Amino acid sequence: MQQAFRASIFHCLSDPGPRADKGAVEHFHDGLLVVEDGRITQVGAADQLLPALPDGVRLEDYSGKLIVPGLIDCHVHFSQVDIIASYGEQLLDWLNRYAYPAEMNFSDEEHARSVADFFLDELLANGTTTAAVFATVYPQSVDALFTAAEDRNMRLIAGKVLMDQHCPDELRDDPESAYDDSKALIEKWHGKGRLGYAITPRFALTSSEEQLAAAGRLAKEYPDTWIHTHLAENQQEVDQIAEQFPWSRSYLDVYDHFGLLRERAMYAHCLHLDDTDRSIMATKGAAGAFCPTSNLFLGSGLFDLDAMTDAGVRVGLATDVGGGTSMSMLRTMSEGYKILHLQGQSLPASRAFYLATLGAAEALYLDEHIGNFVPGKEADFIVLDAAGSAMSARVAQNRPRRSMSCYLR
Amino acid sequence: MQQAFRASIFHCLSDPGPRADKGAVEHFHDGLLVVEDGRITQVGAADQLLPALPDGVRLEDYSGKLIVPGLIDCHVHFSQVDIIASYGEQLLDWLNRYAYPAEMNFSDEEHARSVADFFLDELLANGTTTAAVFATVYPQSVDALFTAAEDRNMRLIAGKVLMDQHCPDELRDDPESAYDDSKALIEKWHGKGRLGYAITPRFALTSSEEQLAAAGRLAKEYPDTWIHTHLAENQQEVDQIAEQFPWSRSYLDVYDHFGLLRERAMYAHCLHLDDTDRSIMATKGAAGAFCPTSNLFLGSGLFDLDAMTDAGVRVGLATDVGGGTSMSMLRTMSEGYKILHLQGQSLPASRAFYLATLGAAEALYLDEHIGNFVPGKEADFIVLDAAGSAMSARVAQNRPRRSMSCYLR
Repeated sequence: MQQAFRASIFHCLSDPGPRADKGAVEHFHDGLLVVEDGRITQVGAADQLLPALPDGVRLEDYSGKLIVPGLIDCHVHFSQVDIIASYGEQLLDWLNRYAYPAEMNFSDEEHARSVADFFLDELLANGTTTAAVFATVYPQSVDALFTAAEDRNMRLIAGKVLMDQHCPDELRDDPESAYDDSKALIEKWHGKGRLGYAITPRFALTSSEEQLAAAGRLAKEYPDTWIHTHLAENQQEVDQIAEQFPWSRSYLDVYDHFGLLRERAMYAHCLHLDDTDRSIMATKGAAGAFCPTSNLFLGSGLFDLDAMTDAGVRVGLATDVGGGTSMSMLRTMSEGYKILHLQGQSLPASRAFYLATLGAAEALYLDEHIGNFVPGKEADFIVLDAAGSAMSARVAQNRPRRSMSCYLR
Repeated sequence: MQQAFRASIFHCLSDPGPRADKGAVEHFHDGLLVVEDGRITQVGAADQLLPALPDGVRLEDYSGKLIVPGLIDCHVHFSQVDIIASYGEQLLDWLNRYAYPAEMNFSDEEHARSVADFFLDELLANGTTTAAVFATVYPQSVDALFTAAEDRNMRLIAGKVLMDQHCPDELRDDPESAYDDSKALIEKWHGKGRLGYAITPRFALTSSEEQLAAAGRLAKEYPDTWIHTHLAENQQEVDQIAEQFPWSRSYLDVYDHFGLLRERAMYAHCLHLDDTDRSIMATKGAAGAFCPTSNLFLGSGLFDLDAMTDAGVRVGLATDVGGGTSMSMLRTMSEGYKILHLQGQSLPASRAFYLATLGAAEALYLDEHIGNFVPGKEADFIVLDAAGSAMSARVAQNRPRRSMSCYLR
């Protein structure tokens, strides 16, 4: 079946950042998006495409609203929705005081299913149609999440958390069960519909060397799975990594050593890196998740986007709920702008959208499927309505030429 | 007429900050607020107050919701609602590129009236019932704003902007007209109903020494007016102040020299101060406005709340729209938390509310009228509903003991 959607349409064709090509973005003020059997067939100006539209195409009119590609959240914890905005700690204490106790509840698959439903509905309500999600150490929490995503036909990357040390006993697996459980989940879910599996060591502090090695073996045996973990979020964490792995050149080097640095690896945060780290990440094709609300809320530090871009590292935007404070990628863009501005860097609205659409898709190696409206890609898009608040409606009305920016508040 | 309002009730009796007294805050889970002729007569637990309530008192039931004092925005520009989230500059360029052109429209009183209506409705929609507002250089913009506030019976402090140099010609007054126009506006509006006048030099860069001296004369002639200006927002601005006033010890010293440092002086930002400045501010009874969203959006710097508190300086919270990005004091609290956490400081929910209620009232010398529910004060309060979003409803339900924090996102 063919469908057409009329609205203002914006998408990126490449990175509109500092080294942008002309034509990095397309914005059709009165645009048309044509879809057949769930895939994009055409995008362009309505006055050009409408006359040639075959009879019987169902036309939906969203004039005055804005269609953009479905937003992509590159790093978020579904077990942490109930501890969002928990008070007063930096990373390591915050994990012990809030995150770990909350995760223990997810051994109960019923609880996991209920939270998964709420979590995915919230993502969708915020315009996020694809996410890379940390589940918990319990395989049943992964089943619950993938089942809920499958019900909604969402594109989701997720995995069982691996951690066998420096964490509460209830949350501890071991190198063998980590390997076996992950392998079973990969066989069950990876590549099923729009779902993909991520090998998910929590971070290098909470895995023994044996477990990191087991994760690396999996990453090699299943080269088209993802790897999802945290990297250099907090200075205290970085210091402990140096103690725990005295042989390592850097935090990144630990992952590299165990075969966890490759394409399709998504590292959340990447705050405390050096130029060598960034250069190696770029060469190996790994990506960083920029988590502005979380980095401020946990006082972790300021993400250096210019340095990542200069080094050629793939970067996607992420909420990191519950360290992050909002499920909204739009609000996350707004706080990303601020973090960069504090460092004398800039984030135009077009590039903020890039980091949550095409850029995130490239970071996750999903850009053959989603990220923009190139014909053949999945018809994965959202409709934004500036009339949602009195203030954004006013800005959209008074600044039509700059109306993109109104979506960022 | 007597009225009673039943809800969860929270207010501050003193600063719940680091040197808090026991009893700095009161939270009645099932509370009652009794009001007569627009003033508080009683506040307490419903089960204690309800039995003694006289017949004929009209009872409104907001059970499950939270009543707090009306929020107070200590610094905001009503002429800047249409340039909110304008892209990409730090303070001085931002003024030239966005703020000044927008302000020129306010010579048209009809425009000023229309924006004033929108602006005050947005404040109220966000729970802000009192604000200290920059108007523009045009006296008619002050008339428009006060008229609109009077229509709504809002408590509002505002004044005509004084600036006679380093700004576009259209926005320039001179020392004499600044004095005469301000004096006429004071006579017309100050103390009328709930309105108060603020002598409002934009900042020391845009006023000649003659104009600053004229403002100082006014401040002495009308000691119960307010003074409202900006102080040490941006490093480049601070450097230019040092050039323009080579005799001054500091930026603050310029205001002091011209008689603009006294009780009822509200200085927005206060980012680049030293201990001597803070000590002098405390001694003289002047206050600082903490503007988190603006300080991040314009990349100005990080407010040092602990240093201000240690020095004993009065501090209130503020949106600073349009440098700020939200009219919501709740969202402003959330970003204030983050700015402080980045510096290793903390902001509990109770203190965040203090800075937007009693603390702001003390900073503005309005605490005899508003800020908490002490009997005799004005019945100036709002009702917050956690069910406003799925996420806040969930947090309020799952964390009843910590339900205050859910209002901060």
